Amino acid sequence: MLVNCVAYQDGRKLADVPKDEIGDYIRRPGCFVWVALFEPSLADLQEMREEFGLHELAVEDASKGHHRPKLEEYGDSLFAVLQPIEIKEDELKVGEVEIFVGPNYVLSVRKQSERGFQGVRTRSEKEPHLLKHGAAYVLYALMDTVADRYFPVIDALETELERIEAQIFKRDTARSNIEALYGLKQKLMTLKHAVEPTMEAVGKLRGGRVPQVCMGMQEYFRDVFDHLQHINATIESIRDMQATAIQVNLGMINLNETEVTKKLAGWAAIIAVPTLIAGIYGMNFKGMPEYDLAYGYPLCIAVMVALDVALYFWFKKIKWL
Amino acid sequence: MLVNCVAYQDGRKLADVPKDEIGDYIRRPGCFVWVALFEPSLADLQEMREEFGLHELAVEDASKGHHRPKLEEYGDSLFAVLQPIEIKEDELKVGEVEIFVGPNYVLSVRKQSERGFQGVRTRSEKEPHLLKHGAAYVLYALMDTVADRYFPVIDALETELERIEAQIFKRDTARSNIEALYGLKQKLMTLKHAVEPTMEAVGKLRGGRVPQVCMGMQEYFRDVFDHLQHINATIESIRDMQATAIQVNLGMINLNETEVTKKLAGWAAIIAVPTLIAGIYGMNFKGMPEYDLAYGYPLCIAVMVALDVALYFWFKKIKWL
Amino acid sequence: MLVNCVAYQDGRKLADVPKDEIGDYIRRPGCFVWVALFEPSLADLQEMREEFGLHELAVEDASKGHHRPKLEEYGDSLFAVLQPIEIKEDELKVGEVEIFVGPNYVLSVRKQSERGFQGVRTRSEKEPHLLKHGAAYVLYALMDTVADRYFPVIDALETELERIEAQIFKRDTARSNIEALYGLKQKLMTLKHAVEPTMEAVGKLRGGRVPQVCMGMQEYFRDVFDHLQHINATIESIRDMQATAIQVNLGMINLNETEVTKKLAGWAAIIAVPTLIAGIYGMNFKGMPEYDLAYGYPLCIAVMVALDVALYFWFKKIKWL
Amino acid sequence: MLVNCVAYQDGRKLADVPKDEIGDYIRRPGCFVWVALFEPSLADLQEMREEFGLHELAVEDASKGHHRPKLEEYGDSLFAVLQPIEIKEDELKVGEVEIFVGPNYVLSVRKQSERGFQGVRTRSEKEPHLLKHGAAYVLYALMDTVADRYFPVIDALETELERIEAQIFKRDTARSNIEALYGLKQKLMTLKHAVEPTMEAVGKLRGGRVPQVCMGMQEYFRDVFDHLQHINATIESIRDMQATAIQVNLGMINLNETEVTKKLAGWAAIIAVPTLIAGIYGMNFKGMPEYDLAYGYPLCIAVMVALDVALYFWFKKIKWL
Amino acid sequence: MLVNCVAYQDGRKLADVPKDEIGDYIRRPGCFVWVALFEPSLADLQEMREEFGLHELAVEDASKGHHRPKLEEYGDSLFAVLQPIEIKEDELKVGEVEIFVGPNYVLSVRKQSERGFQGVRTRSEKEPHLLKHGAAYVLYALMDTVADRYFPVIDALETELERIEAQIFKRDTARSNIEALYGLKQKLMTLKHAVEPTMEAVGKLRGGRVPQVCMGMQEYFRDVFDHLQHINATIESIRDMQATAIQVNLGMINLNETEVTKKLAGWAAIIAVPTLIAGIYGMNFKGMPEYDLAYGYPLCIAVMVALDVALYFWFKKIKWL
Repeated sequence: MLVNCVAYQDGRKLADVPKDEIGDYIRRPGCFVWVALFEPSLADLQEMREEFGLHELAVEDASKGHHRPKLEEYGDSLFAVLQPIEIKEDELKVGEVEIFVGPNYVLSVRKQSERGFQGVRTRSEKEPHLLKHGAAYVLYALMDTVADRYFPVIDALETELERIEAQIFKRDTARSNIEALYGLKQKLMTLKHAVEPTMEAVGKLRGGRVPQVCMGMQEYFRDVFDHLQHINATIESIRDMQATAIQVNLGMINLNETEVTKKLAGWAAIIAVPTLIAGIYGMNFKGMPEYDLAYGYPLCIAVMVALDVALYFWFKKIKWL
Repeated sequence: MLVNCVAYQDGRKLADVPKDEIGDYIRRPGCFVWVALFEPSLADLQEMREEFGLHELAVEDASKGHHRPKLEEYGDSLFAVLQPIEIKEDELKVGEVEIFVGPNYVLSVRKQSERGFQGVRTRSEKEPHLLKHGAAYVLYALMDTVADRYFPVIDALETELERIEAQIFKRDTARSNIEALYGLKQKLMTLKHAVEPTMEAVGKLRGGRVPQVCMGMQEYFRDVFDHLQHINATIESIRDMQATAIQVNLGMINLNETEVTKKLAGWAAIIAVPTLIAGIYGMNFKGMPEYDLAYGYPLCIAVMVALDVALYFWFKKIKWL
Repeated sequence: MLVNCVAYQDGRKLADVPKDEIGDYIRRPGCFVWVALFEPSLADLQEMREEFGLHELAVEDASKGHHRPKLEEYGDSLFAVLQPIEIKEDELKVGEVEIFVGPNYVLSVRKQSERGFQGVRTRSEKEPHLLKHGAAYVLYALMDTVADRYFPVIDALETELERIEAQIFKRDTARSNIEALYGLKQKLMTLKHAVEPTMEAVGKLRGGRVPQVCMGMQEYFRDVFDHLQHINATIESIRDMQATAIQVNLGMINLNETEVTKKLAGWAAIIAVPTLIAGIYGMNFKGMPEYDLAYGYPLCIAVMVALDVALYFWFKKIKWL
Repeated sequence: MLVNCVAYQDGRKLADVPKDEIGDYIRRPGCFVWVALFEPSLADLQEMREEFGLHELAVEDASKGHHRPKLEEYGDSLFAVLQPIEIKEDELKVGEVEIFVGPNYVLSVRKQSERGFQGVRTRSEKEPHLLKHGAAYVLYALMDTVADRYFPVIDALETELERIEAQIFKRDTARSNIEALYGLKQKLMTLKHAVEPTMEAVGKLRGGRVPQVCMGMQEYFRDVFDHLQHINATIESIRDMQATAIQVNLGMINLNETEVTKKLAGWAAIIAVPTLIAGIYGMNFKGMPEYDLAYGYPLCIAVMVALDVALYFWFKKIKWL
Repeated sequence: MLVNCVAYQDGRKLADVPKDEIGDYIRRPGCFVWVALFEPSLADLQEMREEFGLHELAVEDASKGHHRPKLEEYGDSLFAVLQPIEIKEDELKVGEVEIFVGPNYVLSVRKQSERGFQGVRTRSEKEPHLLKHGAAYVLYALMDTVADRYFPVIDALETELERIEAQIFKRDTARSNIEALYGLKQKLMTLKHAVEPTMEAVGKLRGGRVPQVCMGMQEYFRDVFDHLQHINATIESIRDMQATAIQVNLGMINLNETEVTKKLAGWAAIIAVPTLIAGIYGMNFKGMPEYDLAYGYPLCIAVMVALDVALYFWFKKIKWL
């Protein structure tokens, strides 16, 4: 589905361009066309391929879906794959954006992703001094937007970790903690598999040998790289704490086991001691003098209670109860 | 066993070539011969060695079997070892394909692998504009096919992990989970030991200093490399989750132990308390007034039952039962 | 908030400069201006941006706050982000310092950090032979100060680890140890996320291709780098011991469980054996000769006590009690 | 002890050379001498040092024993240390071979290693087209032999791992498994410490800047490197599985603990329930109607048995017994 | 404290030099002065600084103490920090040696280290053919000595590990093993933090771009590097085994727990079964025929004993007792 198709010159919008006039505009010097597609059909892609002379392998990747961010040079054009991530009902939803960039065109293809990039276009059109850098600026603006959208995701994961940390030393939370920690790990892996290759991709544009089409924009891509590096460091940090938290949780489970065993032992003693006494006074020996005492029975009960009270406080003192 | 031997020129099939005419064709300029062998004898290999002037060490590797993917240059020719993997009855079966590539020949040797590469030849012959890149294109097509055949394997492993994840927080599945996780790890290692060195091998053809025979094909090999990188990242991801799952499973085992101990403690109390009371009323003291009560016995039983009901609900409340 | 604004020439203070005369001073050859801001407003930053011609992206980073140390070149100027860390009530408090350095100016922006850098200025003014290196020396002095302030933090963490190590093999400390180890890990991660990128940033100034403005100062920055490397190695070392300590703590928990189980078993035997004997002598068989013994009852009690004493010493001997 | 000393020219044996004529032969152009020593005395080494002009530090290393494979250049000569490994009575025995290689000599020194390299000499003498590459070929042949002798060792370790894997999910094997896994780990470390540095050493001869004396032999050394890489990958793979197996074993131990606790709980219930009933009917209340029933006693016993049978099947059903 | 101050020329001692004549000697061509200080005062260091023109930052590091080995170039001079380690009463004691090396002087500063380097001087003076390499040779000799003194330390740690390994599978050693393993880890970390940066420092002198003052000595420094590499590999190996040993120890603790639980269960059964029987024959039913049997009581006791003997052998057979 074609979302927009606009031609720009010197940072300013020239015109909305019907698909069949794209060719006219991209031949004008100093002019570039920015086309946005949403979940295009194979036919749409083929059409664009012919219009812009895209490389066969790039178009094949775009049509198949690819599932891993990357940046590839094909002659003087670039093919980038990005993965925006959205949170939906506590799950991470991975989308895909493919961007073809040439000296005089940008073609962005969005898939499985609800939030579009219309805002990027609007913002860019308001800043002609930046947009006049041409197609590379649009690539930057899209990458920057995708990277910025990782921040709320990483914040959500940090919040999740803090929530678990607040639980982890409490009793009887081990089962829910361990499930939550496993879920957190899954989300971290999803995020990491989007961020790390994106970082690698953006890194190719930030310095050293930079593709011709992005020359002069290094400082901008370095800025995106820097944000991604920050996100990546935070992911590593959460992972590290999450791994420690799993170990700690295991320790808490075992501590809890010990506490249960201590409770069991304490109460067992409190019941077993009077049971033993009762057993003794159920014996049938002749001549057990206690049997004939005036207060034999109440005395016996009193001894039982006294022993149990003593045991109770003793176990309290050594923290077994 | 000779599977095929065909000569090509300008991307088109010239003729099926009998073994002893190979020499004629490879001397023709712009012509190359593509020979496919299946589990060849040492004699077959020696014959080919003389025909194409293969390097002694490469032929020795091919005859011995080698068990690790690689790519080596011998002068202006290449020797590649690949490991296609098939799933058979829930086990991974590792095959081996050796490919010798020179400017005017491709020799592929397939071993321990049921699925052949006839489809690759058929497809290539239908795309003369690609096949006219010559021997390097055939190498690409074979590598691409081997790489693509890893995808169903990785999908099977992901499915396996998901199956275990769905079990892991259930009770009484610890034993089967731990066996499944160990089995998964074994399969991951097998796959990883095929993919990682293949990636390294293909990486030598995707950029930087590329062997003469593969010049101009870098974008194609980069595409294979990219697929392998994707597979490799997924392997790492499954490994990471699998390691966490083993830890989680250990936690679940210990949690379960605690739950068993709690149940044991609860029921022990429920039996021990009336046992104590029964013991008391089995004592032989003189003058135990309860003995002479009209409803002494039913009252005693009632107290026992009442205490047990109270204990039962108490243990239910604190989740020990 | 403007803290200071002073012009220097040849390592000596020229004058306190009102904001609107900055322009005059930075145009004088051999003169540089050192401005210090504390939690500036956006307007303050914009003003400085115009005064010194700072790069838009750097100013944006400074205004947003950035949370990760770095060093970036923008043309012939540098933008550095540092994170001083202070200990407040047993918590680590991460501040932020941004430094813009050009050939004839230094602008430092301090945020969320109580301790200022007035001491750095005073010390620098007392050493004109060093300060005459210009803006780069000020950058060095600030970096050196931030790095030196990590030392008390790392010392505190080492002390914390030693405190835990002194506890870890004691009984009944497992719960507090595991909480302390988790807290230590959190602090280590905070420190590591400040130190590691700072090290990377300073590393760019210590050798190899060094930005023009820092030429001739490499030995000084190498010294800061060396201090950071020392801190970093100590962090790694504490982390490593902390991870081992968590494992050891888990071992101690399980050892403790075994000791509790042994105690439980020992006392259970000591109670159960006389209970069995009492049970036997509560039986109602005819013709149990013991019943009619003169000292049947005391003998029976004596046997019970004797068995229990024997059991007690036996369990003491095998260290179950 | 001198094992052999032979001069070669053009790949063919010239003569067995007495020690004091070595000098004559190594001065002949196109001729090289191959000396093999076995556990030489210091005097033997000093003699050789003078004969061939070996470097002091290399001879010192050789006389002391060194315990780590390496390759070092001293001017136009090479000094290599290798560690052949043999299996003796289920233990790994690490030997040492030092090789000095110059343009016109090879001196091999074998220590603590039963299997010699006579076979290498015999094989080399049968292949004059290879041996005429000179001293470097001998170095290759020795390295190749040492590398090939690692294969049976790695096979033995793989077999050992498989043996443990076959045991690991069986009951009551935890103790022997954990001992076997620890022993396997020790052997892996021994092998790894021989293979890894050897790989590094051979790597210096396989490409890039190659020492003069080995020029033109890169493909051969690459082949050895490739075998070592294969061995190394297998070591890593066994290590990885061994680490997982230790975790799994810990899980099995804990699972087993749970099963024991369940059994304990089940049988405890089966004994405790009739004990309670017996206690009740040992009470001395007046007017317990059951006492006077005609079949009171057998009924009571029947109830006990019925309850126990029910409990038994219940516990069987929930897999506690 | 000044230990020695000697001038050398052509590898031979010229004279013991009083401090104030140092200047005369270092101006003589081909002559160098070797000064050794022990725990010098700040004044001593300042004096040396002026005498030899040492760099301010290096002297500052030396006066403060530094705690991490390193090698730094300051113009044409070098500043090295080494950490000799001694074993004292089972503890590792880390010393510090700083070495300033210029074309015509060596200044070594020793701190917190009992063993001096007088032996190095004596040995060097006996080998004028080596000492005539000048200051760089002295640096080598000191580094080599420090490296050689690590060997007894690493041997002690290996012995310690072997001692623990011999204990680890024995019963009731878990507590002492875990303490010993933690102590071993601490020592390993201390050693590692001395060796690793020393290796890095020496590595700068062994090849590639070597500081002018050390030219021609690369083979000697490579030899030191090689020894350090060997030590480092051994450290890694001990660490790896130590980590596995901690896991194994945890497994043994849990195995032991299971064995205790089995014992508990076994003896509980042996006591509980006759207790149940005694309970039954304490019941007060009318018409229990056993009560009137001639040998009722002894028969009952016989049954109890028989059951217990059977249980005992059963538990022995399944290895619970």
